[in-house]
Amino acid sequence: MGRETELIKLNKPVYILASAAVGSSKEKEGPLGSYFDITDKDIKFGKDTFEAGESEMQRLALNTALKKARVHHRELNAVLAGDLLNQCTSSTYGLIEFDVPFIGLYGACSTMAEGLALGSLLIDGGHFNKAAAATASHFCASERQFRFPLEYGGQRTPTSQWTATAAGAAILADASPDINCPKISEIMFGRIVDKGITDLNNMGAAMAPAAVDTILKYFRETGADPSDFDMIATGDLGAEGKRITENILLSEGLDIRANYNDCGLLIYDLKKQEVNAGGSGCGCSAGVFCGYLMSKLSSGEFKNILFIGTGALMSPGSVMQGNSIPGIAHLINIRVD
Amino acid sequence: MGRETELIKLNKPVYILASAAVGSSKEKEGPLGSYFDITDKDIKFGKDTFEAGESEMQRLALNTALKKARVHHRELNAVLAGDLLNQCTSSTYGLIEFDVPFIGLYGACSTMAEGLALGSLLIDGGHFNKAAAATASHFCASERQFRFPLEYGGQRTPTSQWTATAAGAAILADASPDINCPKISEIMFGRIVDKGITDLNNMGAAMAPAAVDTILKYFRETGADPSDFDMIATGDLGAEGKRITENILLSEGLDIRANYNDCGLLIYDLKKQEVNAGGSGCGCSAGVFCGYLMSKLSSGEFKNILFIGTGALMSPGSVMQGNSIPGIAHLINIRVD
Repeated sequence: MGRETELIKLNKPVYILASAAVGSSKEKEGPLGSYFDITDKDIKFGKDTFEAGESEMQRLALNTALKKARVHHRELNAVLAGDLLNQCTSSTYGLIEFDVPFIGLYGACSTMAEGLALGSLLIDGGHFNKAAAATASHFCASERQFRFPLEYGGQRTPTSQWTATAAGAAILADASPDINCPKISEIMFGRIVDKGITDLNNMGAAMAPAAVDTILKYFRETGADPSDFDMIATGDLGAEGKRITENILLSEGLDIRANYNDCGLLIYDLKKQEVNAGGSGCGCSAGVFCGYLMSKLSSGEFKNILFIGTGALMSPGSVMQGNSIPGIAHLINIRVD
Repeated sequence: MGRETELIKLNKPVYILASAAVGSSKEKEGPLGSYFDITDKDIKFGKDTFEAGESEMQRLALNTALKKARVHHRELNAVLAGDLLNQCTSSTYGLIEFDVPFIGLYGACSTMAEGLALGSLLIDGGHFNKAAAATASHFCASERQFRFPLEYGGQRTPTSQWTATAAGAAILADASPDINCPKISEIMFGRIVDKGITDLNNMGAAMAPAAVDTILKYFRETGADPSDFDMIATGDLGAEGKRITENILLSEGLDIRANYNDCGLLIYDLKKQEVNAGGSGCGCSAGVFCGYLMSKLSSGEFKNILFIGTGALMSPGSVMQGNSIPGIAHLINIRVD
């Protein structure tokens, strides 16, 4: 009885034909600014509300990714998307103009990884030829929903993370004309892990045990060595969560530090940009993956990476009712020939 | 260019080994009361809050379905679940004790259908042997999140629906020892459809166009006749949404009325139970499917049904910001030999 393995090796690799990242001025000013396809000085992206701006970012990301992949939206068998807003509305309103079957996800900041994983499996299963994964987050929309309205001017704690105002979308396919196209070959879905953290301003600590659970399981099941990878990227644990993850893994005998980084640390300059422990939000790992990581894969600079989307599965209401913050981490292995 | 079809015919049928439905006293007093596996007079199911009660219902449903299927939770390759609470927390907290990879969904009241559809495709794809789909909703938790706290005592409009306090879970597998086991053979994911409804108390009207879109597409692509099915069940449009759905379909030349019903009408006695237009919430169609419909399939009374999960993809915040209410409908065909 019991699953023999939780690692899923795809029968045939699934190609990431193209991806696109959208961000605000803050993301543009960060170290990865040049990897964003579209950035806008207008934090509302031409819309009336922060929430509508988040939807617009998601629309722009998918639209741009489709154009780069030279795929028409009607060729997609489905779009897999979700976000942090209550009832995932940035996906619903942002993606409604695409005439495509819609599969709604909720994975908090792990949504990009979850969408890539599920989309790949649906293509690998043979019924889908092409699918898209998309997500977004918005600093101002998230602050007022999860913490305080910006007008309140609350001080942020050192372990708090900065929700990225960003979106990402990727187009998956069963074939690619480009022999150097990045491809997904392995997937591992995470379990819900809860180690009792109750501080809404320390999400990194809440998510780190989930990241550890999935990373350990992956290395134990595959026998891979951390040096096999050009990059092991979690997203988004921030400085605090990254340190905890490294330390627990070390105590388990696994040292991933040489090639390990976190999307929440990559996206901003922590010394200059006043983001405390780093970036977070669905758009953070999505923007870093669809912009920076995909660019490094497409150029061949990275040939083998692990992308581990991490999510904190609580709400402010559940924490006020005394619940701790459960985390989850989904892993994807992407390679280039 | 373009998808040739949106209908997915599974290569091999996926078996629904067992299912379980959990409800409160109100669901027990309804016409389908005897089909619920567990009901409790305590609306909080022994917990401190309505939200924790909703989690407990989801835990009970999955636990009972696993026992009925004689499957250990460690045999599951994944649980696919989601709910209506902000950030899907009834699934997270309710399912954490099961040591199983977790795939978070958001499909509002269509979640049961979405989970069954995705779970089936993951099994059909060959990487999964067994998976579970689960969801829940709670009247008191939903009212205070989406409308008013119960203490406010607001009057309900005639078109409003009553969020079911219920949960459902189903165990999917690639094989069954029982030749009469119900099996999923066709799937059709819906698109996001928005016809401009802005009334949070008329969700049936908001979701009906999505139901029409998917149902029409299914009958046009398959050439099936409504009389082929022992039951065509939407969930949950209520009285208003069902009437609209029937009328639009009639205007398109498709008369499904003979074998058509809606989970929101089946679950309560509209004359006696003061539920206005009928039931709604993720737990409504989940409870009706996992209790009543699965029972009729297992006994052979129903041999071929369509289950069409319908969801309203808005939040109170998005409606206050002037957005209308988009709907979605995912279809599943379940047969018994």
